[in-house]
Amino acid sequence: MDIPATAAALKNGERRALARAITLVESCRADHRQQALELIDALGSDRQALRIGLSGTPGVGKSTFIETFGLFLTGQGLRVAVLAVDPSSARSGGSILGDKTRMEHLSRDPNAFIRPSPSQAQMGGVARRTREAVALCEAAGFDVVLIETVGVGQSETMVAEMCDIFTLLLAPAGGDELQGVKRGIMEIADLILVNKADGDLKPPATRTCADYAGALRLLRKRPQDPSDFPKAMTVSAYEGAGVEQAWNEMCALAEWRKENGHFAGRRAEQARYWFHEEVRLQLLERLSADAALSAQLAKAEAALSRGEITPASAAAQVLDGFMAG
Amino acid sequence: MDIPATAAALKNGERRALARAITLVESCRADHRQQALELIDALGSDRQALRIGLSGTPGVGKSTFIETFGLFLTGQGLRVAVLAVDPSSARSGGSILGDKTRMEHLSRDPNAFIRPSPSQAQMGGVARRTREAVALCEAAGFDVVLIETVGVGQSETMVAEMCDIFTLLLAPAGGDELQGVKRGIMEIADLILVNKADGDLKPPATRTCADYAGALRLLRKRPQDPSDFPKAMTVSAYEGAGVEQAWNEMCALAEWRKENGHFAGRRAEQARYWFHEEVRLQLLERLSADAALSAQLAKAEAALSRGEITPASAAAQVLDGFMAG
Repeated sequence: MDIPATAAALKNGERRALARAITLVESCRADHRQQALELIDALGSDRQALRIGLSGTPGVGKSTFIETFGLFLTGQGLRVAVLAVDPSSARSGGSILGDKTRMEHLSRDPNAFIRPSPSQAQMGGVARRTREAVALCEAAGFDVVLIETVGVGQSETMVAEMCDIFTLLLAPAGGDELQGVKRGIMEIADLILVNKADGDLKPPATRTCADYAGALRLLRKRPQDPSDFPKAMTVSAYEGAGVEQAWNEMCALAEWRKENGHFAGRRAEQARYWFHEEVRLQLLERLSADAALSAQLAKAEAALSRGEITPASAAAQVLDGFMAG
Repeated sequence: MDIPATAAALKNGERRALARAITLVESCRADHRQQALELIDALGSDRQALRIGLSGTPGVGKSTFIETFGLFLTGQGLRVAVLAVDPSSARSGGSILGDKTRMEHLSRDPNAFIRPSPSQAQMGGVARRTREAVALCEAAGFDVVLIETVGVGQSETMVAEMCDIFTLLLAPAGGDELQGVKRGIMEIADLILVNKADGDLKPPATRTCADYAGALRLLRKRPQDPSDFPKAMTVSAYEGAGVEQAWNEMCALAEWRKENGHFAGRRAEQARYWFHEEVRLQLLERLSADAALSAQLAKAEAALSRGEITPASAAAQVLDGFMAG
């Protein structure tokens, strides 16, 4: 790939260049990885989008919300990128965003860019790919980058560590189902949106929202928030109700944090977090790429299968050689 | 700790020595780690227990089953150790085996040893601790080591990689709930036990068992199994029905595998698996213990917070220094 040309096309907002660049950062090949690093370095970081994380379990209406919310944003003249993080996609072939028809209108909007989750076995790889894809979308001049995830395992924490505002989409529920939301998620959510506040579900949605608002008030205040955040609201992705208000709340929160230094502070903290993750990930990559090590591993495996050594002692011996070499 | 004395006491079957030794392998301190390795090496591997993995989600009656099963085994003159793997214990304070009163009678049986799950943040650490605790229980002369886990996240795979026989405990269910059992688990289970086959639940338990038996027949046969395995059976932990049959099936399977070389083969394969895991884990431990690296990390963090470098590039630079040093 011609890195300077791709960088220029991408900064010019060319969608095909962006798509190709994301494919590059998704690749596991060592030469692609090198090119990906060069490309990201070449793009710089002078452009900034608002990064919004959106989590919600299957069935809460995530696709419909993204479609409605995305079209609202493009209607305001904003350019929107949607990236998906689906930790299960490696096995199941992807349960979210596997199909662009999921967001039929948004996917045809010239000011929107939708990218499904790639098949990746490793959580570290998924995180890196998504983080770098966010950087690419920013460099391509998108105003809003929406990072979608299903509320499973570590993926929510991962998305929270790469967005400016973390939003949790929920369905109306009985009060006793409140406990179903993992406590850790309540702690990291900036905005809780109770969806499906339309038709018969409007009363339970309103009640659920009040329950969450009450639960949020019990949480410790965070210094990076204005006094009325985190907040719970109702929306109807289907009817569009509440979507503009939700956007206004996100903007108000981002503005407040920018004025108080918390916006840049959060990004700096996230950079540190990902730096440490990268150190771990790259160390393991170097380990698997080390040729001399492979011979050592084979030798140790033979001793192991003869029962001459324990796995822990064998590992210590091999690493002594790796670090010395 | 006096390693030779502890090793001797432990091989003599002294429970307090075993408990102290497990506390040692659970410790994260570098000097404790070193002592733990010495202790395990000193113990050797001439004694072998039957390692049985038992997985089941909360509510299936795992505690009651372990109590009934454990007492049945001690009644046969066997010594039984129960170890728990609870990946959530770091956060929740432990949802399984946190309280020995859960298995009131078994915990008072002189031929049983029950060890709750330790608080550990890291999956790698939990796996290592459990694997080493199994080795300690074997060296202490236990005949059966039961490794209990909740069916959450990676913990089942981990337990499957350290047991000779993997058992899945299920509750009676409607046929359409079959899908609730993760497909991967069906693939690794040797024996599916449908519990609560008593009273009103006996008919649904029998139906559920037939459903699983049918599902198991659809799975590809594994060369390490006799033709009638994996198998589904009903048990009633409450009434004790089926428990002896379950034990007989486990013994028959272990016997068949021993005769056909699959028993030792599986252990050798597991040793290789844990060796590679140990290489990864120890590499990361060396990384965090490296003093020169700490200075490099701090320098890189400063450049990161000034936005001069991306996390991936910073990580690559730091690792270049670490590997060269």
